[in-house]
Amino acid sequence: MREVYLDNVATTPVLPEVVKVMLPYLKEAYGNVQSLHNWGDSAREAVEEARNKVADLIGGKAEEVIFTASGTESNNFAVKGLAMAQQSKGKHIVVSAIEHFSVLHSAKTLEKWGFEVSEVPVDKYGLVDPDKVANSLRKDTILVSIMHANSEVGTIEPIKEIASVVKQSGAIFHTDAVATAGTIPVDVGELGVDALSLAGNEFYGPKGSGALWLKKGVRIIPFLDGGVQEGGKRAGTENVPAIAGLGKAAELAKADIGARAKRLSPLRDKLLAKLPQRIEHVIVTGHPTQRLPGHASFCVEFIEGEAMLMLLNSKGIAVSSGSACTSRALKASHVLIAMGLPHEIAQGSLLFSFGLDNTEEDVDYVLEAMPPIVERLRQMSPLYAKFLKGKKGGK
Amino acid sequence: MREVYLDNVATTPVLPEVVKVMLPYLKEAYGNVQSLHNWGDSAREAVEEARNKVADLIGGKAEEVIFTASGTESNNFAVKGLAMAQQSKGKHIVVSAIEHFSVLHSAKTLEKWGFEVSEVPVDKYGLVDPDKVANSLRKDTILVSIMHANSEVGTIEPIKEIASVVKQSGAIFHTDAVATAGTIPVDVGELGVDALSLAGNEFYGPKGSGALWLKKGVRIIPFLDGGVQEGGKRAGTENVPAIAGLGKAAELAKADIGARAKRLSPLRDKLLAKLPQRIEHVIVTGHPTQRLPGHASFCVEFIEGEAMLMLLNSKGIAVSSGSACTSRALKASHVLIAMGLPHEIAQGSLLFSFGLDNTEEDVDYVLEAMPPIVERLRQMSPLYAKFLKGKKGGK
Repeated sequence: MREVYLDNVATTPVLPEVVKVMLPYLKEAYGNVQSLHNWGDSAREAVEEARNKVADLIGGKAEEVIFTASGTESNNFAVKGLAMAQQSKGKHIVVSAIEHFSVLHSAKTLEKWGFEVSEVPVDKYGLVDPDKVANSLRKDTILVSIMHANSEVGTIEPIKEIASVVKQSGAIFHTDAVATAGTIPVDVGELGVDALSLAGNEFYGPKGSGALWLKKGVRIIPFLDGGVQEGGKRAGTENVPAIAGLGKAAELAKADIGARAKRLSPLRDKLLAKLPQRIEHVIVTGHPTQRLPGHASFCVEFIEGEAMLMLLNSKGIAVSSGSACTSRALKASHVLIAMGLPHEIAQGSLLFSFGLDNTEEDVDYVLEAMPPIVERLRQMSPLYAKFLKGKKGGK
Repeated sequence: MREVYLDNVATTPVLPEVVKVMLPYLKEAYGNVQSLHNWGDSAREAVEEARNKVADLIGGKAEEVIFTASGTESNNFAVKGLAMAQQSKGKHIVVSAIEHFSVLHSAKTLEKWGFEVSEVPVDKYGLVDPDKVANSLRKDTILVSIMHANSEVGTIEPIKEIASVVKQSGAIFHTDAVATAGTIPVDVGELGVDALSLAGNEFYGPKGSGALWLKKGVRIIPFLDGGVQEGGKRAGTENVPAIAGLGKAAELAKADIGARAKRLSPLRDKLLAKLPQRIEHVIVTGHPTQRLPGHASFCVEFIEGEAMLMLLNSKGIAVSSGSACTSRALKASHVLIAMGLPHEIAQGSLLFSFGLDNTEEDVDYVLEAMPPIVERLRQMSPLYAKFLKGKKGGK
């Protein structure tokens, strides 16, 4: 059977060049970065080389990059660590309604610790309006965290405009760039942010690799207490293979980012255009143009996303019905609900995310596989039966 | 030049069998554990297999194992998460004076959050006296965290006796077993602990792999907020290769733990016996018999540990002068100070930790290399000159 992996937002494959760079540090070069002997030296060189490459990818300085073990850790570190460090100035935090749960739930934890959190709504495309951010700012607002792009609906947020609004208030601005860093051009200076999270496994680097970029001079409270690693900001033995892999993935992404987008966008555009033509009652979710290059997301009415996902899987097609981090919770996505989609439509969410391994044939394969699957599921759907009855009755 | 790696407490090499198990998950089997398709299934199977193996290593149940990214993360999670979960019952915590900084500094953070921390002292061997733990317990003591063994001086603590004392009080008992799990037999039931931290890179598994074992029914507040991974207890995309590697390392350790100790102990014993014979003013640190199998630690008087370390490095010998996590801080070890060693002697700390690659020839090589290095450094040492002068004067 044909195998078509279209779940690159859940995680990308690791590029062979990346694996190659990691292997020596899994084998002969096993030293601890903190060790003061030759074994430590070679590990340390690998980590510092990677730090430079990650900084290069996002237009930051090497000394501003703090390695973590995941995008989730970077977001926890940023939201909790920045809020705790600024709390003498106030205890109000602003996030958008469609942040990843690693931001939203970190904010919830801060609420338990006495902070106050405001959620900025989004429009029907999942866009955050900079004016609404401006309206949410208060004298005691110390931190704003708005994602660069949403991985469920692909919408890219106007971070530069939001950052400019936040900057005027004096609050710290963090962006979760897990969906964008390594995928579209990201420049911390141009965006005007103070902190930025990224994750290697979203751009062909290894799982277990992530980073928080923190602008020089911005104070943060360490999240992981312990040793003196990462300039005392993040304790724990450095995961040298993962860090080296992240560095290589960053280098490759930096060199290839335009070409990659050019390869993926036509696949996305074809699916976004054709799927609603082939199947009735299919809604594109997210912004029609301001969206991630390989990202096509839909709601298929009268059906549950998970059921489609299972049947697509039986055809060798891997997709998701929302964030991988919550897929097993089987709840309607907070992102789609925040965009104003009714609960019963949000349940029919389906997300195709293209990667470097995909071709136009994959799109055609999906376009062929989908109609009979939808047909089959709709025949079993009480919601669809009701809809047809209503339509008939209405005539 | 001969290369002799004697810094296995900083990190062990990764066994080839472990690397082999990891590779598929770095290459073709790149799925996200949370994905509901085939790619997710194979990742999930790998993680659950590893969970069983880690549970087996420590005599726990698979569902009690929570994967983390390091021993440091496990300790932060345990100390902060357990304290936060029990705080309605009290806010007093007990640790030993020689805990790893990931425990001590987590406790310091808790102090900032309104908790009170008592430090139990140790004797000259680094042993924690269960009676002293008993004396430190109060009605509002909710958590005790005492390490299973100290990696700087090798001393193995009487955890079973301490656990029995703590259990009577109703407090939760956590042990940092980063130095012991996979190295000496560890059985959570026999030890009587409620929570236990371990790290893969201490027993021939990969860096970036760790786990917290948490007894069923013991409440903990998640440390990493976000998705539903690890039963909702630890968010973040599962690092499948690292977890699979940790599982394999656990399996190999379990099968081989007695044979490994039998290989390492004679190397340790030879160095512990011979080095003080070959060089004057050398003190063995840690307990003479209740110590880790591959662990030989000393204080060499009148010299700084780092200087010896550098000269040993120039002979191809990798050792450390304390914990890798603080080696770059170049401060006298809090462990040695807590054991009552004077500051100037504690500075001459040197720690040889044997691993599976080492042989008796390595011990002989060290025994040959050390005397001229010590001689050379003592000739430059004002402390030593003072000592000699005092000795002469005393005659």
